[in-house]
Amino acid sequence: MNIHFEELKMYTKFDDLADDLLDLAKEILPEQLFYLSAINETEQLIIKLSEEQTRMPVTEGMVIDLNYSLCQRIDFQTKQPLIYEDVTKDRSLDGMREVLEGANVQSYLGIPISLANGEKFGTLCAINDEVSLFESKSIELLQRIVRLFSYYLELERFAWRDMLTDLYNRRYLTHQFDQQPETEGALFFLDLDGFKNVNDVYGHDAGDAVLQEVARRLKSLIAGQKEAYAVRLGGDEFVIRFTHFDSQQALIDQADEILVRLSTWDTYELSTSIGIVAYKDADSSLKTLLRQADIALYEAKSSGKNRYKLFTE
Amino acid sequence: MNIHFEELKMYTKFDDLADDLLDLAKEILPEQLFYLSAINETEQLIIKLSEEQTRMPVTEGMVIDLNYSLCQRIDFQTKQPLIYEDVTKDRSLDGMREVLEGANVQSYLGIPISLANGEKFGTLCAINDEVSLFESKSIELLQRIVRLFSYYLELERFAWRDMLTDLYNRRYLTHQFDQQPETEGALFFLDLDGFKNVNDVYGHDAGDAVLQEVARRLKSLIAGQKEAYAVRLGGDEFVIRFTHFDSQQALIDQADEILVRLSTWDTYELSTSIGIVAYKDADSSLKTLLRQADIALYEAKSSGKNRYKLFTE
Repeated sequence: MNIHFEELKMYTKFDDLADDLLDLAKEILPEQLFYLSAINETEQLIIKLSEEQTRMPVTEGMVIDLNYSLCQRIDFQTKQPLIYEDVTKDRSLDGMREVLEGANVQSYLGIPISLANGEKFGTLCAINDEVSLFESKSIELLQRIVRLFSYYLELERFAWRDMLTDLYNRRYLTHQFDQQPETEGALFFLDLDGFKNVNDVYGHDAGDAVLQEVARRLKSLIAGQKEAYAVRLGGDEFVIRFTHFDSQQALIDQADEILVRLSTWDTYELSTSIGIVAYKDADSSLKTLLRQADIALYEAKSSGKNRYKLFTE
Repeated sequence: MNIHFEELKMYTKFDDLADDLLDLAKEILPEQLFYLSAINETEQLIIKLSEEQTRMPVTEGMVIDLNYSLCQRIDFQTKQPLIYEDVTKDRSLDGMREVLEGANVQSYLGIPISLANGEKFGTLCAINDEVSLFESKSIELLQRIVRLFSYYLELERFAWRDMLTDLYNRRYLTHQFDQQPETEGALFFLDLDGFKNVNDVYGHDAGDAVLQEVARRLKSLIAGQKEAYAVRLGGDEFVIRFTHFDSQQALIDQADEILVRLSTWDTYELSTSIGIVAYKDADSSLKTLLRQADIALYEAKSSGKNRYKLFTE
């Protein structure tokens, strides 16, 4: 899973730190135009430039199809910088000749930025409309700055995610409701049945592994859905939020699917109870929705577990 | 609470990152000798130097009484750098004249390093045996590098601590047992009585606040004891580890004190049950000790809660 461009807006002091990164880079190679970019599966977002300029048509906020970006050629596995001191001299770039000429780019240096878990973040790049000579000392200094910067990214990422499962955390859920109140949607409140027993009998490590597996299954369930995300509230409590509401039947289908997926375990006797609240206008504050979903969850638990209940007033 | 020097040894890639910091600093002010230091209440540890040299008697691993360090004058509240371009010209340094001359230090630049929560970490310092001129541009670049470095520190800190309570986490406890197996000691396994009810009735925010308050009380309880530390295992489970073992009576006194401190709440009905295991040689693996303490804890719970039980074979 790559970074969602939207997520960056939630990072504390992102602008400041991006400025730090670019200013330090500019100190090392003053003649280059630097930019910081984020990359997902298909696109590259130009987050920030080291300076305003008109030599090359790169602007902040620009989104580029990865097929037309040199950064796509960076090997994030080896984390090595990609260096073209003179793009006109490199036959391997023939396929991109037009793009590079159109962009007025004659030299390129791209340094990959990734997180400790290997997740791709983006790049720090230096471009120039002239041939450049990149000394290995300079490249190494840039890599060191990038490494420091990546720890900042990692820290911010953890601020919005649950460290154990990598799902979003309660803080993220609250923030989303504060920032983008949706007039319609649905919220699933999940609580595992029998989880305490796993901890008691098999120990906390086994319990943690169960929570991670639950997270994986929930992620794969909503992987294709743009308007859904999963949250670990804490303990064995999870939330799935849908920011749209098609039909009650669609919700029930999702709930049935979750019940199936979360009741298949080799060693443990585990299942899941779900409280569902669907909302259209009216009071859809997170607090109210969680309380309503919790009431429905309680009903699901007390009527035998391994089932869902819909909240009704 | 300041950083424990010992803790740094557990940080991933600390050496690499310290090198990065010093190399980048050296790039900005090549003529200076830089050092990275950690500071606690009374002492300063010189962690790393930018280079080996003989001009000034500063060495890696050196521990300095803070009273004899210019770094003590840094204001960690304002986070401003402390600058002496020529220490001989500054009358406010008269009290340190001998120390400075002995150390052959004629100029000093100290940049505070602290964490996001305001906690003091240490300093990045530049010293020289000649008068220096520090341009504000250079100082600003150094501050930016320090800011990036502090995110790394923050991230490492969180790797060994519980984010909610700032107590050490299970990973730390495991690591301590792996690194410093003690032949004697004791382990308290605490579990709150009535905590689930706080979550259910007052919500998770209230529950989190309770856990933070429990952590504060446990910290203050062991604040004076060098050979004890508190851990949050997860949920409402805590561990206090004592790395020495005086007498059974001393343990009982501690347990009684904890029972009193953790049963006084304004709004909630809460108390604590404690399982205690004391060990002298024999098998003192963490796993065994936790299992034994858990058995004692279970006895404490099942015989009425709000009490301790000692594990006996």
